[in-house]
Amino acid sequence: MKLTILGCYSATPRKLNNPTAQVLEIKNHLFLVDCGEGTQVQLRKSKVKFSRIKHIFISHLHGDHFFGLPGLISTFRLLGREADLHIYGPKGIKEAITLLLKLGDSWTNYKLFFHELISKESELIYEDDNVTVHTIPLNHRVYTNGFLFREKPSPRTLNIEAVAKYKIDKSQFNNIKSGKDVIVDDRLTVANSKLTFDPPKTKSYAFCSDTAYKEDIIPQIKNVDLLYHEATFLETEQHLCAKTKHTTAKQAATIAKKASVGQLVLGHYSTRYKSLDSFKEEAQQVFENVLLADDGECFEIW
Amino acid sequence: MKLTILGCYSATPRKLNNPTAQVLEIKNHLFLVDCGEGTQVQLRKSKVKFSRIKHIFISHLHGDHFFGLPGLISTFRLLGREADLHIYGPKGIKEAITLLLKLGDSWTNYKLFFHELISKESELIYEDDNVTVHTIPLNHRVYTNGFLFREKPSPRTLNIEAVAKYKIDKSQFNNIKSGKDVIVDDRLTVANSKLTFDPPKTKSYAFCSDTAYKEDIIPQIKNVDLLYHEATFLETEQHLCAKTKHTTAKQAATIAKKASVGQLVLGHYSTRYKSLDSFKEEAQQVFENVLLADDGECFEIW
Repeated sequence: MKLTILGCYSATPRKLNNPTAQVLEIKNHLFLVDCGEGTQVQLRKSKVKFSRIKHIFISHLHGDHFFGLPGLISTFRLLGREADLHIYGPKGIKEAITLLLKLGDSWTNYKLFFHELISKESELIYEDDNVTVHTIPLNHRVYTNGFLFREKPSPRTLNIEAVAKYKIDKSQFNNIKSGKDVIVDDRLTVANSKLTFDPPKTKSYAFCSDTAYKEDIIPQIKNVDLLYHEATFLETEQHLCAKTKHTTAKQAATIAKKASVGQLVLGHYSTRYKSLDSFKEEAQQVFENVLLADDGECFEIW
Repeated sequence: MKLTILGCYSATPRKLNNPTAQVLEIKNHLFLVDCGEGTQVQLRKSKVKFSRIKHIFISHLHGDHFFGLPGLISTFRLLGREADLHIYGPKGIKEAITLLLKLGDSWTNYKLFFHELISKESELIYEDDNVTVHTIPLNHRVYTNGFLFREKPSPRTLNIEAVAKYKIDKSQFNNIKSGKDVIVDDRLTVANSKLTFDPPKTKSYAFCSDTAYKEDIIPQIKNVDLLYHEATFLETEQHLCAKTKHTTAKQAATIAKKASVGQLVLGHYSTRYKSLDSFKEEAQQVFENVLLADDGECFEIW
């Protein structure tokens, strides 16, 4: 898993501050998460191949998470895209995009599938051979979801030497990789653990933005390898969180600690702050392993 | 009059190519013409004070002329705008913006007035003490207007020496500036031309994008000081104009010549061309006074 931050600032796009958008790469598959204005330019700067994006997840319909989507859909058309595009987002997203395409008489020549979300409970919204994506219901001024990406376990790895030692036929390999024991010479049961190694550890990533402090999400994101959590404010501006339904750096770190995540990446900073160092310092008072997102930055998820 | 090009490329925004948007300044009044994605960042780069924009004119509802508008409207709100904002554009623009604001529950705290255009004939859509704005109906794939900005004549300038010589009372000055003759000592009529100088020449600017070659616009833009005309293609790609309803550099120059404009500024270049020199060369075969628009550039209109 590799996470590329295309934009991680809140509110208005500026010369050097892009609104929320990020690309998650899982086994050569690219998922776009949120799409603020300017995302397509950020994709170009990050040298992401547009055609590899087949699934887009939109957390909520505030402009700084969404207003780059109509343009990206149009650009896909102009680039001659043929592959299907799936868009997951709050109810209303289909009406909005469809209206904009209609007004411009600019229908796509590829298929556009909308998966509109309305549930207030977490749900599985995407699954393939390698990954599942669940919503993480958040608490913001409008209906908002985070997204939890979880790799599926790979098959167990064959222990070639052991398999040779027991003279096991190739026809059994798939059974062994799926965890089954094997009966040799019609009598000896060889435990799977003798024939295989553990598969690589599965990785997980949770995207949580925008939201007020919400402990309800902790069970769901327990032990994820990487948590991106919004930190719009510092504790000095904590009084703004209730009205705007945002989180402070300290609150984000508290969530990370209680969920025992591997690493916490902060983002969605208010542009009122000149330096981001205070975000890290404030969060590290609660949780040690804190990173600061920045536009264009990549994080490998181990 | 001063024209600032915020973006002058067609189709998709890129790292160094912004879609159409420009600001026209007339006597300290700012008019925004078109608003492609990224316009608000371009406004910041050009150091335009957002609050001075009170009127926005949208030529048509293709993304590269319009998809920056929802974000700009939101940013005005976040910046605490209180002044009214007037938006002129094709029918449908109100529905689109209203839907996006509704979905984000992000109503503006300033007044938003939509002036939806449907006429296929030129019409006066804005007027104040200094300027008139007429639509220039164009020929594109969707309903499209250019815009003609014309300064109103200033009052004539008083010839202070002449006024003193005839001992004319101050109470007459406004009449004289408006062009009236004056009767002195109840008998002598002094011609206005002896008491005043001509006012500064009024200036005019025509914005024509996007459009196929359309000679019908020539009478309307006759003798304008500056014509911005799209030139999406060179003559080598002239075969693309019919389908896409765009213009070549040579065709734009032909319009400029037949309309006897002062200067022609080309823009809306297809990003297929690596260099823009050929646009100027091709146009200058027909019309000498050609300038190339570029993002961030300013043109004073004399």
